[in-house]
Amino acid sequence: MSITMNGGQIYQLISDLFPITRSITGDGVRQSFALIRKHIPIRIHEVPSGTTVLDWTVPPEWNISDAYIENDKGEKIVDFKKNNLHVLGYSIPVDETLTRKQLDEHLYSIPENPTAIPYRTSYYKKQWGFCLSHQQRMRLKNGKYHVCIKSSLKSGSLTYADIIIPGTSKKEILLSTYICHPSMANDNLSGVALTTFLSKWLLRQKKRRYTYRLVFVPETIGALTYLSKHYKKMRKEVVAGFILTCLGNDAAFSYLPSKYGDTLADRVAKYALKTTGKPFTSYSFLMRGSDERQYCSPGIGLPIVSVMRSKYCEFSQYHTSQDNLQFVTPHALEESFVLYQRMITILEMNKTYTANCLGEPQMGKRNLYPTIGMPYLPPETEKIMNLLMYADGGNDLLRIHELTGISVESLHEIAAVLTKQKLLRNV
Amino acid sequence: MSITMNGGQIYQLISDLFPITRSITGDGVRQSFALIRKHIPIRIHEVPSGTTVLDWTVPPEWNISDAYIENDKGEKIVDFKKNNLHVLGYSIPVDETLTRKQLDEHLYSIPENPTAIPYRTSYYKKQWGFCLSHQQRMRLKNGKYHVCIKSSLKSGSLTYADIIIPGTSKKEILLSTYICHPSMANDNLSGVALTTFLSKWLLRQKKRRYTYRLVFVPETIGALTYLSKHYKKMRKEVVAGFILTCLGNDAAFSYLPSKYGDTLADRVAKYALKTTGKPFTSYSFLMRGSDERQYCSPGIGLPIVSVMRSKYCEFSQYHTSQDNLQFVTPHALEESFVLYQRMITILEMNKTYTANCLGEPQMGKRNLYPTIGMPYLPPETEKIMNLLMYADGGNDLLRIHELTGISVESLHEIAAVLTKQKLLRNV
Amino acid sequence: MSITMNGGQIYQLISDLFPITRSITGDGVRQSFALIRKHIPIRIHEVPSGTTVLDWTVPPEWNISDAYIENDKGEKIVDFKKNNLHVLGYSIPVDETLTRKQLDEHLYSIPENPTAIPYRTSYYKKQWGFCLSHQQRMRLKNGKYHVCIKSSLKSGSLTYADIIIPGTSKKEILLSTYICHPSMANDNLSGVALTTFLSKWLLRQKKRRYTYRLVFVPETIGALTYLSKHYKKMRKEVVAGFILTCLGNDAAFSYLPSKYGDTLADRVAKYALKTTGKPFTSYSFLMRGSDERQYCSPGIGLPIVSVMRSKYCEFSQYHTSQDNLQFVTPHALEESFVLYQRMITILEMNKTYTANCLGEPQMGKRNLYPTIGMPYLPPETEKIMNLLMYADGGNDLLRIHELTGISVESLHEIAAVLTKQKLLRNV
Repeated sequence: MSITMNGGQIYQLISDLFPITRSITGDGVRQSFALIRKHIPIRIHEVPSGTTVLDWTVPPEWNISDAYIENDKGEKIVDFKKNNLHVLGYSIPVDETLTRKQLDEHLYSIPENPTAIPYRTSYYKKQWGFCLSHQQRMRLKNGKYHVCIKSSLKSGSLTYADIIIPGTSKKEILLSTYICHPSMANDNLSGVALTTFLSKWLLRQKKRRYTYRLVFVPETIGALTYLSKHYKKMRKEVVAGFILTCLGNDAAFSYLPSKYGDTLADRVAKYALKTTGKPFTSYSFLMRGSDERQYCSPGIGLPIVSVMRSKYCEFSQYHTSQDNLQFVTPHALEESFVLYQRMITILEMNKTYTANCLGEPQMGKRNLYPTIGMPYLPPETEKIMNLLMYADGGNDLLRIHELTGISVESLHEIAAVLTKQKLLRNV
Repeated sequence: MSITMNGGQIYQLISDLFPITRSITGDGVRQSFALIRKHIPIRIHEVPSGTTVLDWTVPPEWNISDAYIENDKGEKIVDFKKNNLHVLGYSIPVDETLTRKQLDEHLYSIPENPTAIPYRTSYYKKQWGFCLSHQQRMRLKNGKYHVCIKSSLKSGSLTYADIIIPGTSKKEILLSTYICHPSMANDNLSGVALTTFLSKWLLRQKKRRYTYRLVFVPETIGALTYLSKHYKKMRKEVVAGFILTCLGNDAAFSYLPSKYGDTLADRVAKYALKTTGKPFTSYSFLMRGSDERQYCSPGIGLPIVSVMRSKYCEFSQYHTSQDNLQFVTPHALEESFVLYQRMITILEMNKTYTANCLGEPQMGKRNLYPTIGMPYLPPETEKIMNLLMYADGGNDLLRIHELTGISVESLHEIAAVLTKQKLLRNV
Repeated sequence: MSITMNGGQIYQLISDLFPITRSITGDGVRQSFALIRKHIPIRIHEVPSGTTVLDWTVPPEWNISDAYIENDKGEKIVDFKKNNLHVLGYSIPVDETLTRKQLDEHLYSIPENPTAIPYRTSYYKKQWGFCLSHQQRMRLKNGKYHVCIKSSLKSGSLTYADIIIPGTSKKEILLSTYICHPSMANDNLSGVALTTFLSKWLLRQKKRRYTYRLVFVPETIGALTYLSKHYKKMRKEVVAGFILTCLGNDAAFSYLPSKYGDTLADRVAKYALKTTGKPFTSYSFLMRGSDERQYCSPGIGLPIVSVMRSKYCEFSQYHTSQDNLQFVTPHALEESFVLYQRMITILEMNKTYTANCLGEPQMGKRNLYPTIGMPYLPPETEKIMNLLMYADGGNDLLRIHELTGISVESLHEIAAVLTKQKLLRNV
């Protein structure tokens, strides 16, 4: 598989998606999918409000056209049209005049980060609210305030999308990302845009060993909806998977393992991260917080990890207006893209071989061995002999890397030569 | 299960039992059981001398009414009535006058601890002897000495007791202690009294998950006798067990593992000791010395550990007259009692659960989740979600504690709530 | 099994074998076997040139009577009769006069070790050459040189030898050494001579538990030839094996594990090396370089280790004229011999026992226990009780050593006593 430069294009897609007001349902998700569909042929699915999905029910669809707080001079002092984070997600409609004190019960701000507008939601309890910077909140004087939210909560549907890119094998690699967050760049337009460009790259490959399942869902309810339809197949076929989130800022990579930390996804992630040569942060599964909560749950148990940059909850801009287009960079996105390409490439390479002959094959007659008997073997010959020794049908290339220190990429190349020479076969 | 204060009462029972001359057979054991029976309804069993028990034979019954050494002035210089340790256990009767030199072959003392009377026995070789402090021995001048031991060794029986406290399950917890030592407080009246009060406490519980088997036997021959009757059932039913010994002095706790150190008894003991927050000593199974020698032997293989304070053989008062009523304290006994209550309570709590639904259940509709979407979950919610995640049918609560750091007690409480909500079931 | 002194005799055999020109085929191997046969009744086998052995073909037989380089004064400046390393192994015949420059293409020397003649071969590509010290090569002036190699490469046969020393069990211990190197003492006449004397010693034993397979083969092609005939049986029967190589110089012992480092051969080698009390070097299997390359290969998978002194490739005299009779010593050979005797003795001792009774047996009635009950057991009694405790049918003596710290030799002695007493049986 070939590696290409995409950082700038990924950043451009994030910029295009940024202004849209997304939530777990509603037209914002549909508009976002329309933009993504310009890049890749995703299938878009609608699931009616009220549908039971595992233990949950698809909520009413939420849409919003305007929201603001006016002071007694008629000035819009908080305006959804300036920043869609200003409104509490899933706010019910309201049109009232309140005292400063009454208003305060509906306000959300962050005293510790007084210039940031927080991102808050109330999907399952009917209420309304506004989010604003703590500085702004502190400046609100006594007096009357007119609050107006022009939203609707009606029976509609939840929208999600996926794309299945077939491979030689029915075994699947899952890439899942969440599409429900409004104007925030790292969390999670970075994941959405990266998944889009990885799809594009995978579609361009002439041949894939694995089938790829790429999933764009609203977080939690969307993942549950998706699983309710596909978990039997996924439980059977998915051999490794990734939650794509928080991949856009200039920070070291980080890794959140699967439930028990021992799956193929864990092994490939740790190998890829280790061989970047740069430090990375390892989290415990106890620090989880995205759709691995569903994918790894009892009875589902998929082998899913997250490879991120600054992990959600772990950066000061998280879930605020400061997670904006300045916070992510084309360079960081490019690096993230390359790392995911590499993990996928290694998964494709990571076969299990068995030697075709007993004892060492005679490499000399195949021009793979020095003709003069020397005390030391050339390093390339040593690698060949080590692969042949450990190709006993019980080790995949990642395991042979652990046993020999030879990179998976080198092992793959050597395996190709030896397979051609009929010295190895894939099992 | 409720925790109660018992240190003073346990100390009182030790004081009551202290003067009695016990051995592996004889009336001393019967008198001791009579006192214990005032607290708990033990069943008392008699096994005739000569009975084959596994590789052994129940020895003749030994009783003693008096024993002394008189000097040539007719003064009793060593007197069994002052301290029953003065006579070598299982001494045959004697009534002779000897020279100082002849006498010396029958004396036992400890040069390194010259003020202590040692505890010595000769159960299986017919001989007689006296134990005395090394100081006293050194003071014995040349001259004639009259030795008199009024003992009998006759066909009779070995006496032991047990009590089975039934639970919901046939699976058993074994608490075993040894009753054969004469006037020594830590080794092992502490174990005897503690086992009595643990029985009392267990009997008071309205409901028990496990069946409790509490066993009071003379060490070695008694444990073998007990096993010869019950090993098939015990091998099938006992899931964890403890030897109660040396639990009365003011010293740190100590732990002697099972044969391979990997049983449920080991896990609960280590958990309970670790969470006291105080240091404790861990011994190797090679340091064993009580009835785990029988219970853990090949073909029996029970999961038995010892949780002690100063371990037998490891304190200077061990097997001497200095292991007296001053050496043990109500406070130490209380702490030991509480630790055993806790180990039992944790065993009762330590169930294996499995989640009843796929994916995360919707906690909001059960009022178990914040209604406003926030970047961080409250700690209590986090604990709930972690239990639900790891309740996949393969982990008991002790294992979930290891995976999550949540105390077994908290996990148990949460599991109760979730079971009521039909989100978990016990497997 | 009794231990005897053999260092001097082993050194003498090395001295006798040293002058012979050996290669992977030819009369040198036959002459060497004739000398070995004076010590032990090896079976000698001839396999015709052209025979297919696994992926390989037995090459033509090589013999050589003379080889030299003459300068234009007719002086023999490089003379095979002075040192058989001077000729490139398997050189085709040549009789030509060349310029200095033409000659140089056929010369081999070591610039980093300018006084040593290197050992080089070209078994599978037809060419000729001379090896000489780099000092000598540098002194060669321009002029004409007459090169003469009186060798023959004809259809003949490959010669190897083995000896099977039967034991009570069909299970086998393999000792394999390579016989193909010309005049070099440590690599590998030390291995050849040691294997000879170990055979002699094994033949003298009245009784052996295991069957011993001792194999003398040319390296690589000989091991492959041997495996092609015997691998099915060896795969079934060999429980542990050793490559005997580089055992003659005064240096610390070293250990090269089996492929995964977890076999009986690994366990016994590590035990024997550890209990010498002297430091030893542990290598990775990645540093392998002898016939374990065949014996451990996929589909063969024998449990083979190497216990050496200075490992091949790891000493400056390796594969040069400096690996001579001064480099090896009777004392080092004696120590190596004793270590191999010990590994074999431990393998013979290393049985798995199970106790014949439930609970502890009554040791007193068998005079194996103190008659006075004492706080501490005598160390010998403690060892007995520990062996009885861990003799549960799942542990061999090496494992019981790991669990108890008791030497395998002590455990073996105790097991003999307990087996006689019918307390243990071998499983």
